[in-house]
Amino acid sequence: MHEIRVGFEDILKKQLELAGKNYELLSTHGVKAFNVMGAIGSGKTTVILRLAEALRRRGLRAGAVAGDVAGDDDYRRFRQAGLPAANINTGDDCHLDAHRVHHILEELPLDEIDILFIENVGNLVCPADFPLGTEMDIVVISVTEGGDMVRKHPKIFAQTDVMVINKVDLAEVVGVDPQRLVADYRTVNPHGIAILTDAKIGRGIEELLSALGI
Amino acid sequence: MHEIRVGFEDILKKQLELAGKNYELLSTHGVKAFNVMGAIGSGKTTVILRLAEALRRRGLRAGAVAGDVAGDDDYRRFRQAGLPAANINTGDDCHLDAHRVHHILEELPLDEIDILFIENVGNLVCPADFPLGTEMDIVVISVTEGGDMVRKHPKIFAQTDVMVINKVDLAEVVGVDPQRLVADYRTVNPHGIAILTDAKIGRGIEELLSALGI
Repeated sequence: MHEIRVGFEDILKKQLELAGKNYELLSTHGVKAFNVMGAIGSGKTTVILRLAEALRRRGLRAGAVAGDVAGDDDYRRFRQAGLPAANINTGDDCHLDAHRVHHILEELPLDEIDILFIENVGNLVCPADFPLGTEMDIVVISVTEGGDMVRKHPKIFAQTDVMVINKVDLAEVVGVDPQRLVADYRTVNPHGIAILTDAKIGRGIEELLSALGI
Repeated sequence: MHEIRVGFEDILKKQLELAGKNYELLSTHGVKAFNVMGAIGSGKTTVILRLAEALRRRGLRAGAVAGDVAGDDDYRRFRQAGLPAANINTGDDCHLDAHRVHHILEELPLDEIDILFIENVGNLVCPADFPLGTEMDIVVISVTEGGDMVRKHPKIFAQTDVMVINKVDLAEVVGVDPQRLVADYRTVNPHGIAILTDAKIGRGIEELLSALGI
Protein backbone atom coordinates (compact mmCIF):
# COMPACT_ATOMS: atom_id res chain seq x y z
CA MET A 1 0.00 0.00 0.00
CA HIS A 2 2.85 2.29 -0.91
CA GLU A 3 0.59 4.90 -2.54
CA ILE A 4 -1.14 5.69 0.74
CA ARG A 5 2.12 6.10 2.59
CA VAL A 6 3.26 8.79 0.18
CA GLY A 7 -0.02 10.67 0.44
CA PHE A 8 0.11 10.17 4.16
CA GLU A 9 3.49 11.90 4.47
CA ASP A 10 2.23 14.93 2.57
CA ILE A 11 -0.70 15.13 4.94
CA LEU A 12 1.55 14.83 7.97
CA LYS A 13 3.67 17.73 6.70
CA LYS A 14 0.53 19.82 6.27
CA GLN A 15 -0.63 18.74 9.73
CA LEU A 16 2.68 19.83 11.26
CA GLU A 17 2.24 23.29 9.74
CA LEU A 18 -1.32 23.49 11.04
CA ALA A 19 -0.18 22.27 14.45
CA GLY A 20 2.32 25.14 14.52
CA LYS A 21 -0.49 27.58 13.77
CA ASN A 22 -2.59 26.12 16.57
CA TYR A 23 0.30 26.54 18.97
CA GLU A 24 0.68 30.18 17.93
CA LEU A 25 -3.03 30.86 18.28
CA LEU A 26 -3.09 29.29 21.74
CA SER A 27 0.02 31.23 22.82
CA THR A 28 -1.51 34.51 21.62
CA HIS A 29 -4.38 33.93 24.02
CA GLY A 30 -2.12 32.72 26.83
CA VAL A 31 -3.55 29.21 26.70
CA LYS A 32 -1.48 26.16 27.58
CA ALA A 33 -2.95 23.10 25.84
CA PHE A 34 -2.52 19.38 26.47
CA ASN A 35 -3.26 16.51 24.11
CA VAL A 36 -4.83 13.79 26.28
CA MET A 37 -4.65 10.39 24.60
CA GLY A 38 -5.54 6.91 25.79
CA ALA A 39 -7.77 3.93 25.10
CA ILE A 40 -11.52 3.91 25.51
CA GLY A 41 -12.48 3.76 29.17
CA SER A 42 -9.03 4.54 30.54
CA GLY A 43 -10.55 7.49 32.39
CA LYS A 44 -9.39 10.44 30.25
CA THR A 45 -12.55 12.47 30.89
CA THR A 46 -12.48 11.86 34.64
CA VAL A 47 -8.78 12.75 34.85
CA ILE A 48 -9.46 16.01 32.99
CA LEU A 49 -12.42 16.86 35.24
CA ARG A 50 -10.30 16.29 38.37
CA LEU A 51 -7.48 18.40 36.91
CA ALA A 52 -10.01 21.17 36.17
CA GLU A 53 -11.18 21.13 39.80
CA ALA A 54 -7.60 21.31 41.07
CA LEU A 55 -6.87 24.18 38.69
CA ARG A 56 -9.98 26.03 39.89
CA ARG A 57 -8.67 25.80 43.44
CA ARG A 58 -5.53 27.57 42.20
CA GLY A 59 -7.56 30.26 40.44
CA LEU A 60 -6.87 28.87 36.97
CA ARG A 61 -9.59 28.26 34.39
CA ALA A 62 -9.69 25.02 32.42
CA GLY A 63 -11.43 24.34 29.13
CA ALA A 64 -11.91 21.07 27.26
CA VAL A 65 -12.34 19.64 23.80
CA ALA A 66 -14.03 16.23 23.59
CA GLY A 67 -12.91 14.16 20.60
CA ASP A 68 -14.85 11.04 19.70
CA VAL A 69 -15.81 9.04 16.65
CA ALA A 70 -19.46 9.60 17.56
CA GLY A 71 -21.60 10.85 20.43
CA ASP A 72 -21.30 13.67 22.92
CA ASP A 73 -21.20 11.90 26.31
CA ASP A 74 -17.83 13.39 27.27
CA TYR A 75 -18.73 16.85 25.98
CA ARG A 76 -21.83 16.85 28.15
CA ARG A 77 -19.80 15.83 31.20
CA PHE A 78 -17.44 18.77 30.59
CA ARG A 79 -20.34 21.18 30.20
CA GLN A 80 -22.09 19.87 33.32
CA ALA A 81 -18.89 20.55 35.23
CA GLY A 82 -19.08 24.15 34.07
CA LEU A 83 -16.14 24.05 31.64
CA PRO A 84 -16.05 25.96 28.38
CA ALA A 85 -16.09 22.97 26.01
CA ALA A 86 -16.47 21.88 22.41
CA ASN A 87 -17.22 18.53 20.80
CA ILE A 88 -15.51 17.00 17.76
CA ASN A 89 -17.00 13.92 16.10
CA THR A 90 -14.51 12.45 13.67
CA GLY A 91 -16.87 10.02 11.93
CA ASP A 92 -14.61 7.29 10.64
CA ASP A 93 -11.31 8.79 11.78
CA CYS A 94 -9.55 7.23 14.75
CA HIS A 95 -7.75 10.42 15.81
CA LEU A 96 -8.03 14.19 16.02
CA ASP A 97 -5.90 16.27 13.70
CA ALA A 98 -4.58 19.83 13.73
CA HIS A 99 -7.07 20.94 11.10
CA ARG A 100 -10.11 19.84 13.08
CA VAL A 101 -8.63 21.27 16.26
CA HIS A 102 -8.00 24.59 14.53
CA HIS A 103 -11.67 24.95 13.64
CA ILE A 104 -12.75 24.07 17.15
CA LEU A 105 -10.32 26.57 18.70
CA GLU A 106 -12.15 29.28 16.80
CA GLU A 107 -15.35 28.30 18.59
CA LEU A 108 -13.90 28.35 22.11
CA PRO A 109 -13.66 31.48 24.31
CA LEU A 110 -9.86 31.24 24.48
CA ASP A 111 -9.51 34.44 26.51
CA GLU A 112 -11.48 32.79 29.30
CA ILE A 113 -9.28 29.68 29.36
CA ASP A 114 -5.84 29.23 30.94
CA ILE A 115 -5.42 25.50 30.42
CA LEU A 116 -7.06 23.58 27.58
CA PHE A 117 -7.37 19.80 27.63
CA ILE A 118 -7.93 18.23 24.24
CA GLU A 119 -9.27 14.71 24.74
CA ASN A 120 -8.31 12.64 21.72
CA VAL A 121 -10.26 9.72 20.22
CA GLY A 122 -9.97 6.66 22.45
CA ASN A 123 -7.28 4.30 21.21
CA LEU A 124 -3.51 3.89 21.50
CA VAL A 125 -2.64 3.69 17.82
CA CYS A 126 -3.74 6.52 15.52
CA PRO A 127 -3.47 9.65 17.71
CA ALA A 128 0.30 9.11 17.95
CA ASP A 129 0.74 10.17 14.33
CA PHE A 130 -1.01 13.54 14.50
CA PRO A 131 0.49 16.54 16.31
CA LEU A 132 -2.19 19.02 17.39
CA GLY A 133 -0.04 21.98 18.43
CA THR A 134 -0.26 21.33 22.15
CA GLU A 135 2.31 22.02 24.86
CA MET A 136 2.56 18.39 25.94
CA ASP A 137 1.22 14.95 25.12
CA ILE A 138 -0.33 12.89 27.89
CA VAL A 139 -1.40 9.26 27.66
CA VAL A 140 -3.86 7.85 30.18
CA ILE A 141 -3.97 4.09 30.64
CA SER A 142 -5.90 2.01 33.13
CA VAL A 143 -4.64 -1.06 34.97
CA THR A 144 -7.81 -2.81 33.79
CA GLU A 145 -6.41 -2.82 30.25
CA GLY A 146 -3.89 -5.47 31.22
CA GLY A 147 -0.19 -5.51 31.89
CA ASP A 148 1.00 -5.52 28.29
CA MET A 149 -0.33 -2.31 26.76
CA VAL A 150 2.96 -0.41 26.80
CA ARG A 151 4.74 -3.29 25.04
CA LYS A 152 1.90 -3.48 22.53
CA HIS A 153 1.96 0.24 21.67
CA PRO A 154 5.57 1.38 22.07
CA LYS A 155 5.19 4.27 19.64
CA ILE A 156 2.61 6.33 21.50
CA PHE A 157 4.42 5.81 24.81
CA ALA A 158 7.81 6.68 23.33
CA GLN A 159 6.61 10.11 22.23
CA THR A 160 4.39 11.01 25.18
CA ASP A 161 5.67 13.35 27.88
CA VAL A 162 3.55 12.02 30.72
CA MET A 163 1.95 8.62 31.24
CA VAL A 164 -0.94 8.43 33.71
CA ILE A 165 -1.71 4.97 35.12
CA ASN A 166 -5.30 5.32 36.25
CA LYS A 167 -7.64 3.12 38.33
CA VAL A 168 -4.70 1.94 40.46
CA ASP A 169 -7.28 1.01 43.12
CA LEU A 170 -8.23 -1.93 40.85
CA ALA A 171 -4.64 -3.11 40.30
CA GLU A 172 -4.92 -6.04 42.69
CA VAL A 173 -8.37 -7.12 41.52
CA VAL A 174 -7.20 -7.35 37.91
CA GLY A 175 -3.76 -8.68 38.83
CA VAL A 176 -1.72 -5.97 37.11
CA ASP A 177 1.38 -4.44 38.71
CA PRO A 178 1.54 -0.68 37.95
CA GLN A 179 5.29 -0.70 38.63
CA ARG A 180 5.75 -3.18 35.81
CA LEU A 181 3.96 -0.74 33.48
CA VAL A 182 6.22 2.05 34.72
CA ALA A 183 9.26 -0.13 33.97
CA ASP A 184 7.98 -0.83 30.43
CA TYR A 185 7.43 2.91 29.96
CA ARG A 186 10.99 3.70 31.09
CA THR A 187 12.30 1.25 28.51
CA VAL A 188 10.64 3.01 25.56
CA ASN A 189 10.76 6.52 27.04
CA PRO A 190 13.53 7.24 29.59
CA HIS A 191 12.49 10.91 29.89
CA GLY A 192 8.74 10.42 30.37
CA ILE A 193 7.10 10.96 33.73
CA ALA A 194 4.78 8.24 35.08
CA ILE A 195 2.02 9.23 37.51
CA LEU A 196 -0.30 6.79 39.30
CA THR A 197 -3.87 7.98 39.80
CA ASP A 198 -7.27 6.92 41.00
CA ALA A 199 -9.07 9.78 39.31
CA LYS A 200 -12.47 8.85 40.72
CA ILE A 201 -11.34 9.99 44.16
CA GLY A 202 -8.75 12.51 42.98
CA ARG A 203 -5.71 10.49 44.04
CA GLY A 204 -2.52 11.52 42.20
CA ILE A 205 -4.05 14.61 40.59
CA GLU A 206 -1.78 17.12 42.36
CA GLU A 207 1.29 15.09 41.30
CA LEU A 208 -0.05 15.09 37.75
CA LEU A 209 -0.43 18.87 37.76
CA SER A 210 3.22 19.18 38.81
CA ALA A 211 4.26 16.81 36.04
CA LEU A 212 2.44 19.08 33.59
CA GLY A 213 4.50 21.99 34.87
CA ILE A 214 1.54 23.80 36.45
CA MET B 1 -8.90 15.29 2.86
CA HIS B 2 -10.90 14.18 -0.16
CA GLU B 3 -7.90 12.61 -1.93
CA ILE B 4 -7.46 10.01 0.80
CA ARG B 5 -11.10 9.07 0.75
CA VAL B 6 -10.98 8.26 -2.95
CA GLY B 7 -7.84 6.16 -2.54
CA PHE B 8 -9.44 4.58 0.49
CA GLU B 9 -12.46 3.37 -1.47
CA ASP B 10 -10.25 1.74 -4.07
CA ILE B 11 -8.40 -0.03 -1.33
CA LEU B 12 -11.62 -1.18 0.29
CA LYS B 13 -12.78 -2.66 -3.00
CA LYS B 14 -9.51 -4.53 -3.34
CA GLN B 15 -9.79 -5.65 0.29
CA LEU B 16 -13.28 -7.02 -0.35
CA GLU B 17 -11.95 -9.12 -3.22
CA LEU B 18 -9.12 -10.39 -1.05
CA ALA B 19 -11.54 -11.11 1.79
CA GLY B 20 -13.54 -13.25 -0.62
CA LYS B 21 -10.41 -15.18 -1.53
CA ASN B 22 -9.62 -15.75 2.15
CA TYR B 23 -13.12 -17.08 2.70
CA GLU B 24 -12.70 -19.48 -0.21
CA LEU B 25 -9.32 -20.66 1.01
CA LEU B 26 -10.68 -21.27 4.51
CA SER B 27 -13.72 -23.11 3.14
CA THR B 28 -11.53 -25.36 1.01
CA HIS B 29 -9.80 -26.50 4.17
CA GLY B 30 -13.05 -26.78 6.13
CA VAL B 31 -12.06 -23.95 8.47
CA LYS B 32 -14.64 -21.66 10.06
CA ALA B 33 -12.98 -18.33 10.94
CA PHE B 34 -14.00 -15.55 13.29
CA ASN B 35 -12.78 -11.95 13.34
CA VAL B 36 -12.42 -11.05 17.02
CA MET B 37 -12.35 -7.29 17.54
CA GLY B 38 -12.35 -5.14 20.66
CA ALA B 39 -10.37 -2.53 22.55
CA ILE B 40 -7.03 -3.16 24.24
CA GLY B 41 -7.48 -5.13 27.44
CA SER B 42 -11.07 -6.14 26.80
CA GLY B 43 -10.02 -9.77 27.12
CA LYS B 44 -9.99 -10.94 23.49
CA THR B 45 -7.07 -13.32 24.00
CA THR B 46 -8.55 -14.86 27.15
CA VAL B 47 -11.95 -15.29 25.49
CA ILE B 48 -10.29 -17.07 22.55
CA LEU B 49 -8.26 -19.33 24.87
CA ARG B 50 -11.43 -20.31 26.77
CA LEU B 51 -13.27 -20.97 23.50
CA ALA B 52 -10.37 -23.14 22.35
CA GLU B 53 -10.60 -25.20 25.54
CA ALA B 54 -14.36 -25.64 25.13
CA LEU B 55 -13.83 -26.67 21.50
CA ARG B 56 -11.20 -29.20 22.51
CA ARG B 57 -13.73 -30.80 24.87
CA ARG B 58 -15.97 -31.24 21.81
CA GLY B 59 -13.18 -32.76 19.76
CA LEU B 60 -12.72 -29.63 17.63
CA ARG B 61 -9.33 -28.03 16.97
CA ALA B 62 -8.90 -24.28 17.29
CA GLY B 63 -6.18 -22.09 15.80
CA ALA B 64 -5.41 -18.44 16.34
CA VAL B 65 -3.92 -15.40 14.65
CA ALA B 66 -2.67 -12.63 16.96
CA GLY B 67 -2.86 -9.16 15.43
CA ASP B 68 -1.09 -6.29 17.13
CA VAL B 69 0.68 -3.07 16.26
CA ALA B 70 3.79 -4.45 17.97
CA GLY B 71 4.88 -7.29 20.20
CA ASP B 72 4.01 -10.96 20.45
CA ASP B 73 2.52 -11.33 23.94
CA ASP B 74 -0.79 -12.70 22.65
CA TYR B 75 0.88 -14.97 20.11
CA ARG B 76 2.99 -16.50 22.84
CA ARG B 77 -0.10 -17.10 24.99
CA PHE B 78 -1.74 -18.95 22.10
CA ARG B 79 1.35 -21.07 21.53
CA GLN B 80 1.71 -21.87 25.23
CA ALA B 81 -1.87 -23.12 25.17
CA GLY B 82 -0.87 -25.48 22.37
CA LEU B 83 -2.74 -23.77 19.55
CA PRO B 84 -1.42 -23.57 16.00
CA ALA B 85 -0.90 -19.80 15.86
CA ALA B 86 0.64 -16.97 13.86
CA ASN B 87 1.55 -13.39 14.73
CA ILE B 88 0.89 -10.28 12.65
CA ASN B 89 2.52 -6.97 13.62
CA THR B 90 0.93 -4.14 11.67
CA GLY B 91 3.49 -1.45 12.51
CA ASP B 92 1.54 1.79 12.23
CA ASP B 93 -1.76 0.28 11.10
CA CYS B 94 -4.62 0.16 13.57
CA HIS B 95 -6.32 -2.88 11.99
CA LEU B 96 -5.73 -6.15 10.20
CA ASP B 97 -6.63 -6.36 6.54
CA ALA B 98 -7.46 -9.18 4.15
CA HIS B 99 -4.08 -8.95 2.44
CA ARG B 100 -2.11 -9.45 5.64
CA VAL B 101 -4.46 -12.22 6.73
CA HIS B 102 -4.05 -13.97 3.38
CA HIS B 103 -0.30 -14.21 3.82
CA ILE B 104 -0.65 -15.51 7.34
CA LEU B 105 -3.20 -18.15 6.29
CA GLU B 106 -0.53 -19.59 4.03
CA GLU B 107 1.70 -20.10 7.07
CA LEU B 108 -0.91 -21.90 9.17
CA PRO B 109 -1.56 -25.68 9.05
CA LEU B 110 -5.18 -25.13 7.95
CA ASP B 111 -5.90 -28.85 7.62
CA GLU B 112 -5.26 -29.24 11.34
CA ILE B 113 -7.66 -26.43 12.29
CA ASP B 114 -11.46 -26.55 12.51
CA ILE B 115 -12.08 -23.11 13.98
CA LEU B 116 -9.74 -20.16 13.47
CA PHE B 117 -9.89 -17.08 15.68
CA ILE B 118 -8.32 -13.98 14.18
CA GLU B 119 -7.65 -11.48 16.95
CA ASN B 120 -7.68 -8.00 15.45
CA VAL B 121 -5.67 -4.97 16.61
CA GLY B 122 -7.08 -3.60 19.86
CA ASN B 123 -9.38 -0.66 19.23
CA LEU B 124 -13.02 -0.06 18.33
CA VAL B 125 -12.51 2.21 15.33
CA CYS B 126 -10.36 1.00 12.46
CA PRO B 127 -11.06 -2.77 12.30
CA ALA B 128 -14.69 -2.03 11.42
CA ASP B 129 -13.68 -0.89 7.93
CA PHE B 130 -11.74 -3.98 6.88
CA PRO B 131 -13.44 -7.30 6.07
CA LEU B 132 -11.09 -10.25 6.49
CA GLY B 133 -13.11 -13.02 4.91
CA THR B 134 -14.33 -14.54 8.15
CA GLU B 135 -17.61 -16.29 8.90
CA MET B 136 -18.64 -13.85 11.60
CA ASP B 137 -17.49 -10.69 13.34
CA ILE B 138 -17.27 -10.68 17.12
CA VAL B 139 -16.60 -7.66 19.30
CA VAL B 140 -15.37 -8.12 22.87
CA ILE B 141 -15.86 -5.26 25.32
CA SER B 142 -15.18 -5.10 29.03
CA VAL B 143 -17.35 -3.42 31.64
CA THR B 144 -14.18 -1.67 32.85
CA GLU B 145 -14.20 0.41 29.67
CA GLY B 146 -17.19 2.39 30.93
CA GLY B 147 -20.88 2.48 30.13
CA ASP B 148 -20.69 4.58 26.99
CA MET B 149 -18.55 2.61 24.56
CA VAL B 150 -21.39 1.36 22.37
CA ARG B 151 -22.73 4.90 21.94
CA LYS B 152 -19.21 6.13 21.17
CA HIS B 153 -18.56 3.50 18.48
CA PRO B 154 -21.92 2.73 16.87
CA LYS B 155 -20.37 1.61 13.58
CA ILE B 156 -18.43 -1.40 14.81
CA PHE B 157 -21.34 -2.58 16.95
CA ALA B 158 -23.86 -2.11 14.13
CA GLN B 159 -21.98 -4.49 11.86
CA THR B 160 -20.87 -7.09 14.40
CA ASP B 161 -22.78 -10.38 14.72
CA VAL B 162 -21.97 -11.06 18.35
CA MET B 163 -21.07 -8.69 21.19
CA VAL B 164 -19.28 -10.21 24.18
CA ILE B 165 -19.46 -8.19 27.41
CA ASN B 166 -16.51 -9.49 29.38
CA LYS B 167 -15.30 -9.06 32.99
CA VAL B 168 -18.93 -8.90 34.18
CA ASP B 169 -17.61 -9.87 37.64
CA LEU B 170 -16.23 -6.31 37.86
CA ALA B 171 -19.50 -4.63 36.80
CA GLU B 172 -20.43 -3.52 40.32
CA VAL B 173 -16.93 -2.36 41.27
CA VAL B 174 -16.74 -0.07 38.24
CA GLY B 175 -20.42 0.93 38.42
CA VAL B 176 -21.38 -0.17 34.91
CA ASP B 177 -24.65 -1.97 34.18
CA PRO B 178 -24.10 -4.65 31.49
CA GLN B 179 -27.82 -4.59 30.65
CA ARG B 180 -27.52 -0.94 29.71
CA LEU B 181 -24.75 -1.89 27.27
CA VAL B 182 -26.99 -4.63 25.87
CA ALA B 183 -29.78 -2.07 25.39
CA ASP B 184 -27.40 0.29 23.55
CA TYR B 185 -26.30 -2.61 21.36
CA ARG B 186 -29.92 -3.50 20.51
CA THR B 187 -30.46 0.10 19.41
CA VAL B 188 -27.68 0.06 16.83
CA ASN B 189 -27.94 -3.66 15.98
CA PRO B 190 -31.33 -5.33 16.53
CA HIS B 191 -30.09 -8.66 15.14
CA GLY B 192 -26.84 -8.93 17.09
CA ILE B 193 -26.46 -11.41 19.93
CA ALA B 194 -25.10 -10.15 23.27
CA ILE B 195 -23.30 -12.60 25.56
CA LEU B 196 -22.06 -11.82 29.08
CA THR B 197 -18.80 -13.47 30.08
CA ASP B 198 -16.19 -13.63 32.79
CA ALA B 199 -13.61 -15.28 30.61
CA LYS B 200 -11.06 -15.66 33.39
CA ILE B 201 -13.23 -18.37 34.99
CA GLY B 202 -14.94 -19.51 31.78
CA ARG B 203 -18.37 -18.07 32.59
CA GLY B 204 -20.53 -17.55 29.49
CA ILE B 205 -18.19 -19.42 27.13
CA GLU B 206 -20.68 -22.21 26.30
CA GLU B 207 -23.37 -19.61 25.48
CA LEU B 208 -20.84 -17.83 23.29
CA LEU B 209 -20.07 -21.02 21.38
CA SER B 210 -23.79 -21.45 20.69
CA ALA B 211 -24.01 -17.83 19.51
CA LEU B 212 -21.21 -18.60 17.08
CA GLY B 213 -23.25 -21.47 15.69
CA ILE B 214 -20.88 -24.17 16.97
